[in-house]
Amino acid sequence: MVQPLQNLVRLSLPSKGRLAEDALAFLQACGLSVYKPNPRQYEATIPSLPGLTVLFQRPADIVVSVRDGSVDFGITGIDVIEERRGENGSLMVLHESLGFGACALCLAVPEIWNGVDSVARLRQYVEELGRPLRVATKYPVLTGRFLRNAGIPHVLISAEGTLETAPAIGYADIISDLVSSGQTLRDNRLRPLTDGVIQPSQAALIANRASLQRSPEALQIARQLLEYIEAYLRARDEVAIFANMRGTSPEELATRIFTQPTIAGLQGPTISRVIVRSGDPNWYAVNVIVPRSRLFQAISELRAVGGSGVVVVPVNYIFEEEPPRYTAMLKALAEG
Amino acid sequence: MVQPLQNLVRLSLPSKGRLAEDALAFLQACGLSVYKPNPRQYEATIPSLPGLTVLFQRPADIVVSVRDGSVDFGITGIDVIEERRGENGSLMVLHESLGFGACALCLAVPEIWNGVDSVARLRQYVEELGRPLRVATKYPVLTGRFLRNAGIPHVLISAEGTLETAPAIGYADIISDLVSSGQTLRDNRLRPLTDGVIQPSQAALIANRASLQRSPEALQIARQLLEYIEAYLRARDEVAIFANMRGTSPEELATRIFTQPTIAGLQGPTISRVIVRSGDPNWYAVNVIVPRSRLFQAISELRAVGGSGVVVVPVNYIFEEEPPRYTAMLKALAEG
Amino acid sequence: MVQPLQNLVRLSLPSKGRLAEDALAFLQACGLSVYKPNPRQYEATIPSLPGLTVLFQRPADIVVSVRDGSVDFGITGIDVIEERRGENGSLMVLHESLGFGACALCLAVPEIWNGVDSVARLRQYVEELGRPLRVATKYPVLTGRFLRNAGIPHVLISAEGTLETAPAIGYADIISDLVSSGQTLRDNRLRPLTDGVIQPSQAALIANRASLQRSPEALQIARQLLEYIEAYLRARDEVAIFANMRGTSPEELATRIFTQPTIAGLQGPTISRVIVRSGDPNWYAVNVIVPRSRLFQAISELRAVGGSGVVVVPVNYIFEEEPPRYTAMLKALAEG
Amino acid sequence: MVQPLQNLVRLSLPSKGRLAEDALAFLQACGLSVYKPNPRQYEATIPSLPGLTVLFQRPADIVVSVRDGSVDFGITGIDVIEERRGENGSLMVLHESLGFGACALCLAVPEIWNGVDSVARLRQYVEELGRPLRVATKYPVLTGRFLRNAGIPHVLISAEGTLETAPAIGYADIISDLVSSGQTLRDNRLRPLTDGVIQPSQAALIANRASLQRSPEALQIARQLLEYIEAYLRARDEVAIFANMRGTSPEELATRIFTQPTIAGLQGPTISRVIVRSGDPNWYAVNVIVPRSRLFQAISELRAVGGSGVVVVPVNYIFEEEPPRYTAMLKALAEG
Amino acid sequence: MVQPLQNLVRLSLPSKGRLAEDALAFLQACGLSVYKPNPRQYEATIPSLPGLTVLFQRPADIVVSVRDGSVDFGITGIDVIEERRGENGSLMVLHESLGFGACALCLAVPEIWNGVDSVARLRQYVEELGRPLRVATKYPVLTGRFLRNAGIPHVLISAEGTLETAPAIGYADIISDLVSSGQTLRDNRLRPLTDGVIQPSQAALIANRASLQRSPEALQIARQLLEYIEAYLRARDEVAIFANMRGTSPEELATRIFTQPTIAGLQGPTISRVIVRSGDPNWYAVNVIVPRSRLFQAISELRAVGGSGVVVVPVNYIFEEEPPRYTAMLKALAEG
Amino acid sequence: MVQPLQNLVRLSLPSKGRLAEDALAFLQACGLSVYKPNPRQYEATIPSLPGLTVLFQRPADIVVSVRDGSVDFGITGIDVIEERRGENGSLMVLHESLGFGACALCLAVPEIWNGVDSVARLRQYVEELGRPLRVATKYPVLTGRFLRNAGIPHVLISAEGTLETAPAIGYADIISDLVSSGQTLRDNRLRPLTDGVIQPSQAALIANRASLQRSPEALQIARQLLEYIEAYLRARDEVAIFANMRGTSPEELATRIFTQPTIAGLQGPTISRVIVRSGDPNWYAVNVIVPRSRLFQAISELRAVGGSGVVVVPVNYIFEEEPPRYTAMLKALAEG
Repeated sequence: MVQPLQNLVRLSLPSKGRLAEDALAFLQACGLSVYKPNPRQYEATIPSLPGLTVLFQRPADIVVSVRDGSVDFGITGIDVIEERRGENGSLMVLHESLGFGACALCLAVPEIWNGVDSVARLRQYVEELGRPLRVATKYPVLTGRFLRNAGIPHVLISAEGTLETAPAIGYADIISDLVSSGQTLRDNRLRPLTDGVIQPSQAALIANRASLQRSPEALQIARQLLEYIEAYLRARDEVAIFANMRGTSPEELATRIFTQPTIAGLQGPTISRVIVRSGDPNWYAVNVIVPRSRLFQAISELRAVGGSGVVVVPVNYIFEEEPPRYTAMLKALAEG
Repeated sequence: MVQPLQNLVRLSLPSKGRLAEDALAFLQACGLSVYKPNPRQYEATIPSLPGLTVLFQRPADIVVSVRDGSVDFGITGIDVIEERRGENGSLMVLHESLGFGACALCLAVPEIWNGVDSVARLRQYVEELGRPLRVATKYPVLTGRFLRNAGIPHVLISAEGTLETAPAIGYADIISDLVSSGQTLRDNRLRPLTDGVIQPSQAALIANRASLQRSPEALQIARQLLEYIEAYLRARDEVAIFANMRGTSPEELATRIFTQPTIAGLQGPTISRVIVRSGDPNWYAVNVIVPRSRLFQAISELRAVGGSGVVVVPVNYIFEEEPPRYTAMLKALAEG
Repeated sequence: MVQPLQNLVRLSLPSKGRLAEDALAFLQACGLSVYKPNPRQYEATIPSLPGLTVLFQRPADIVVSVRDGSVDFGITGIDVIEERRGENGSLMVLHESLGFGACALCLAVPEIWNGVDSVARLRQYVEELGRPLRVATKYPVLTGRFLRNAGIPHVLISAEGTLETAPAIGYADIISDLVSSGQTLRDNRLRPLTDGVIQPSQAALIANRASLQRSPEALQIARQLLEYIEAYLRARDEVAIFANMRGTSPEELATRIFTQPTIAGLQGPTISRVIVRSGDPNWYAVNVIVPRSRLFQAISELRAVGGSGVVVVPVNYIFEEEPPRYTAMLKALAEG
Repeated sequence: MVQPLQNLVRLSLPSKGRLAEDALAFLQACGLSVYKPNPRQYEATIPSLPGLTVLFQRPADIVVSVRDGSVDFGITGIDVIEERRGENGSLMVLHESLGFGACALCLAVPEIWNGVDSVARLRQYVEELGRPLRVATKYPVLTGRFLRNAGIPHVLISAEGTLETAPAIGYADIISDLVSSGQTLRDNRLRPLTDGVIQPSQAALIANRASLQRSPEALQIARQLLEYIEAYLRARDEVAIFANMRGTSPEELATRIFTQPTIAGLQGPTISRVIVRSGDPNWYAVNVIVPRSRLFQAISELRAVGGSGVVVVPVNYIFEEEPPRYTAMLKALAEG
Repeated sequence: MVQPLQNLVRLSLPSKGRLAEDALAFLQACGLSVYKPNPRQYEATIPSLPGLTVLFQRPADIVVSVRDGSVDFGITGIDVIEERRGENGSLMVLHESLGFGACALCLAVPEIWNGVDSVARLRQYVEELGRPLRVATKYPVLTGRFLRNAGIPHVLISAEGTLETAPAIGYADIISDLVSSGQTLRDNRLRPLTDGVIQPSQAALIANRASLQRSPEALQIARQLLEYIEAYLRARDEVAIFANMRGTSPEELATRIFTQPTIAGLQGPTISRVIVRSGDPNWYAVNVIVPRSRLFQAISELRAVGGSGVVVVPVNYIFEEEPPRYTAMLKALAEG
Repeated sequence: MVQPLQNLVRLSLPSKGRLAEDALAFLQACGLSVYKPNPRQYEATIPSLPGLTVLFQRPADIVVSVRDGSVDFGITGIDVIEERRGENGSLMVLHESLGFGACALCLAVPEIWNGVDSVARLRQYVEELGRPLRVATKYPVLTGRFLRNAGIPHVLISAEGTLETAPAIGYADIISDLVSSGQTLRDNRLRPLTDGVIQPSQAALIANRASLQRSPEALQIARQLLEYIEAYLRARDEVAIFANMRGTSPEELATRIFTQPTIAGLQGPTISRVIVRSGDPNWYAVNVIVPRSRLFQAISELRAVGGSGVVVVPVNYIFEEEPPRYTAMLKALAEG
């Protein structure tokens, strides 16, 4: 009698806030644009991945849904994954660094606690206090484990809203909360401990182990997701450079290029003839792929070996032999 | 070393959403306007209640703060009060019906569960299902107690976001959630059980018992809050009517008025002389207070006994001998 | 098999824009606040008028619904009422001037048509033009009738969007459109004809004749709507003034007051004793109702006859013997 | 005396809503960015099409303006084009599928009309009803023609606002309205008939026939619009792939590539030398264009024939010999 | 040839921001609602003050316009009035404390300047610095005068935007800026000097001296503005209380009331007969006006002397013999 | 004791409005995306330019900060640069035409000043006026210099807000203000003088001379900014075209291409072999870079010489030997 959604492979995305926007932008950049016909619907599709239904949930609910198998895949933060993944191994992390949603779960103390700037100093302070530290947090599992390992007696206080005001209101002594720019902490006159990072976080792709084992469709979606994501992330940091060079032969040009660390690249330049109006037969077009972060250096090297007319074009994807994380996933499934 | 807010009496209000707006509008209507100098600050004041600091927290956090005494008073919903008030009696409800924030915690099932429209039918359905019912909720205490009392085997699933999609996504069978207009349930093709109200709710004023016992300032604030709130709520539903009537004496007019059920009122009309241009000495102005809901009836009655020139003016407050809830609070403190 | 809304009396209000906001504010000021539990629902209620359902439609659709009887009452603009009321008398106007939504359906010509500033000059201009005038409008019935009466050959061009750009785009020569402040016309370099007002407009209350004849509930709602609306509109423009005066008797005070045109009022002042600390027995409190627009004058008059401590209080409603428009409606129903 | 806009070629775009945003985004993607210096102006330009003025109108008004020749070109929906194009052939559709604005004009009935799910069942239902069906619509021409062809007696009811509420309010039995995701129908408990699509729609480019016949400037703009639009639409669905392959000669590589269905392409790969550090002379860069929808397949095929270092770059335009729709337009003009 | 606005009396209001909203709300509360037919127009009217045109300008521009007589009246902040009023006495302040727009022009230093918390310490600090203090400000006249009086060598740096960041960016050492809640200073880690208030400020009503001298219409508007504003401000802080009391005579009741400090009032209670159902002839209604801030005390006093059924109604205006500021203005005009 | 921002190279960007958005979009398009972790912070970074801190200030404050050296670089409008750059040469313009923020400082007069349409006519008009012209402006330096050069007696009136209303309010005769689309002038019935452009403006990159002389880090940032900006601006207007052509040799193809003006380009086409399925050995891929504005022409030329399968790809950057403006800057520094 219960009739949930039609029996398709399902991917849950964050439903609102910065993480939601960044996840949609990331998938679009990967060539996996999400099509949501109506803003009030909770379902969407990715036209280039037919057979996949996209759902929208709060970040922590995504972990629960993937863990219990009611959805097959999810994109959410490492912070909530680690807090809620449970112990039974039903949740697998397929890609642990999607490059957005960076933040960290941190311990932060009032600015006026002079000298309390490390976990060791905090432990000492609590000893003097003579009672357990009251810590407000939305991450009791991770925070409790961290404080136990640090040997700090504590009471965890669960809250729904803005934790940063807890010490001023008085219902907690310190907080354990997500920090990205630190501005909110500063506004509330709190200060993170220098070694108080409980869990660094960014967006990750997760999957339900049983879904992958049971469903060939889910396995195929996993492969496609990882192909696109890895090829996109690799390409995002590379540019393709074309330059004209004069030389006696392609080999002679390559020799000059191989003297330069950046433009030499991994394998070597692609070289084509350029026909010039003067009839000079010794012009060639050289094409190399270099890291975007070394573009400036690459231009200098090309100038140094006689390159001119340097043109840079964008790169959408770079595919390798096999997506390494897909191979890793298959291995983990075989072992699991 | 810990220095929380200056040592004043403190009142927590909801920090955002409809309940927050309604609470501010309610206090303003009571003559207790909240002055918040800066939208980003978490502190405010009520100029007509000097000595009181206003804080802003999420509704559920307000209950925790009042319960543990880090704030003295709170205005929040009965739903979160009953869910989180604990067992030790430290939280007192001073006014249980402030007249806004009405909603109810309800059980709701998918529309397609034909025939499952009561708790009894739900129990029967779960027996046929042969496994515990999975119920998504943010109110595990109230929901668990209700289901145990109803004899329904269940598993509670805690979620952060929009519960209404849980049955469609598949991570729960039914939900236990707040319902006001019911539109969101209908949009998600869910239906509340006819007898599935777990907890009716509206905004209430709560206080920390120990604060009232310990602090004369807090006790004085409690009295002022209850005076203003009760006088406002009483006045909100009354109007003052003035009419001109001709009669041989005030007593004769009153006799006519006492024949009418609404305008007779509890005690009787106030009567003043009206001097008319013609010199006719038999004109009087009559003033009565009647329930706003009976205004229409009162006008008819006044017309029936010869009233004319009927003028209605607003009433801000109606004070009784002593605010009954203040008396009740003193009694509960003495007993507690 | 068709099951429309439950069988209640129904009132349609404008669904969006300035007219919608003003209609809600007007009803609230009348003591008839509309309660809409959910912004996306198309139904609402007026708690002080039980038995009435409120719907929201576009202004022109309200006329159609009231005309064909699918709703009983409507508040909308005279402009769309006159355009769409039809010929069969099924639509009755109960109150023709609710005091908001003022505008006028006007003919407007390009600013560069020098000298064309009246209907007569327009007719002359069209004669020179040698072809019918192309007039863009959303009001073909009213505009066509006006132009026929004016003897101006024309073609009406129906449009959906911003008419003001039609002359510049070239698909019409002039426009017939609603004008309130005239700013939009000026922005588009158009100019209204000085005698080109086709239909002055403001919000009105309309009803379906058959509903009133058939349904006692509808008749009762009509009475209540007119009672509240008329009493509110009358009170909106009056204030109640209280002043202290010293005199030998109420009659002597009244004599002085009757020398002044504004504060004399229609019937005379209400007079009560004031007991002063000095024991002087000759102090009285005088109470009169005066038009708000003459408040300034009334204060001067009171000062002139010795009034002091002048206090002004607001008035919510002023009821007369019977609401005149209700009487008129009954008469029209009897005749119709 | 009438001085409309300066005498340029004119293109009308939708003035607001989703269709307006999508039209601007589409033109930008085609390389025809619209420059609107001021949000309140109704004129804009396309810098890469000098001599063209852009106007903004409501979708239905665009059809009227193009039909009567006051503007030369328009982008608007097929739905309003078919409703308002008239019979005289003055409006020509230059491109009928611009790839955005997809929706359909559909018949929808109340959900509670059990069993009425096709046009045939609707006809049967109306026969039982014993009176013509009342159909609310903004598309009387298309809806009337469809219902006549279906042999269903009906009355069309014209409305301005939200049609979906008409059956609940009671002023119509069913509606004929635009449907995109269907969510609004579901929210209002309506259901489209399975064979009730009156007119499928998406955005189209239209022109005035006489403008094209008369004005060489308009003809030139038509050619440029169609060149850019067709080249963009073709390119949008293709990607350029570069891969390195080792082989004894370009011909040998090509032979391997021609064994694969996707990467063989229509004509064959472009092949350039790659000079590698080891001096191995047998490396080449291979470049093919493949459909974006077959990217995944193409990568597999390249891997299968020894491709490595696969890089994908975006493609802006693909131009054919002549834009086919331009040729078709010239033919239609010659015949028309 | 120059044709400015029609020749009416003119009042300038702030054009945007908090001060603009507060000014409109203040005038509305005074019974002087501003009617602005179009949000983009710069003109408006006050229907209850015919003959007055309302303009909207930036606060500082209002001072310039009133000073040079291009507008007659203005409402703006004391801060800009004092900065820009000039020396020639053409600008008169008619009301210096309208009760909104409170803020202060203050000197603020970086939080890290330990110990620099007063003007004296700042002077000492500048001496050690060995160079003039760089002070960013938008108020060079007031700030320069203050610093000269304080004997602090300085350079004033004029800026357009957010001054608070100037010390961090480095283009000034300290700032002189408007402070209301102080939150922006705290966010930027600045601290006001304890005695660094250069100019306290709130909204004021100003006028051009020559206008008042020359124009009887302007003089009449001045009187009306001051009448309404003073009567409103006086009434805003008062409430009218009605209570029933039993007593042998009005005089006997008054004797009891005069024993109480608050309800005795300035002159004495108004007393009317109340006719009760029992026929007991000794009931009276008592009416007093008390300060809103002493309402709580007044209720206690009324209860103490036997008052019951206490009703509080709002007061719109309290008029005195003559508006004192109007009298003062006439005197200043005569002297000026 | 004063501790401003850490000692990095600093770039100031406009803090709000259209110019701010355009500056961020421009830098992103250049590959220099600005990362601002928190919307309320005034600091940001450009990850691809480590060592650079980005600040946000109002456009005019940017000039002051760069001029006095508290920031090293700025992007702001030529208008404020010329108004505030001062005389001492400390501010250098590194790039004077970034291609956004176009506007002009203009003199504008009331529309009703018939015939006053040039500076000469304005001078004549002022002579007739017999008093200096009152000119409202926020640019006193540039406006004063222009009017002095034009021999027009004038008084400058400084204002904060909307200058366009000054002539209507009457506090100035004409204005000197920034104009982009001219719509605001038209709305206020003002008209720019045909030769009244005081200063044309667009966004520019400026630097502090002393910073560049003193700091190698600043010099390196200057080079990187100019490299990226110049390469981006050059590429923005170019496209890369690939086409297939059949020919007997690359040289023969080139000969055909060199007959065409656009596709011949500056140096000549890059030519690679294409291997076709038929085995025909005479196919080649031709690659040329052409101006985007001549794309249409280039396609025609390619078709004319037998090109087919024409594909256009985007170009991110085109680098020349050395960025000319960097060379110019070094020269100016050496001279300065």
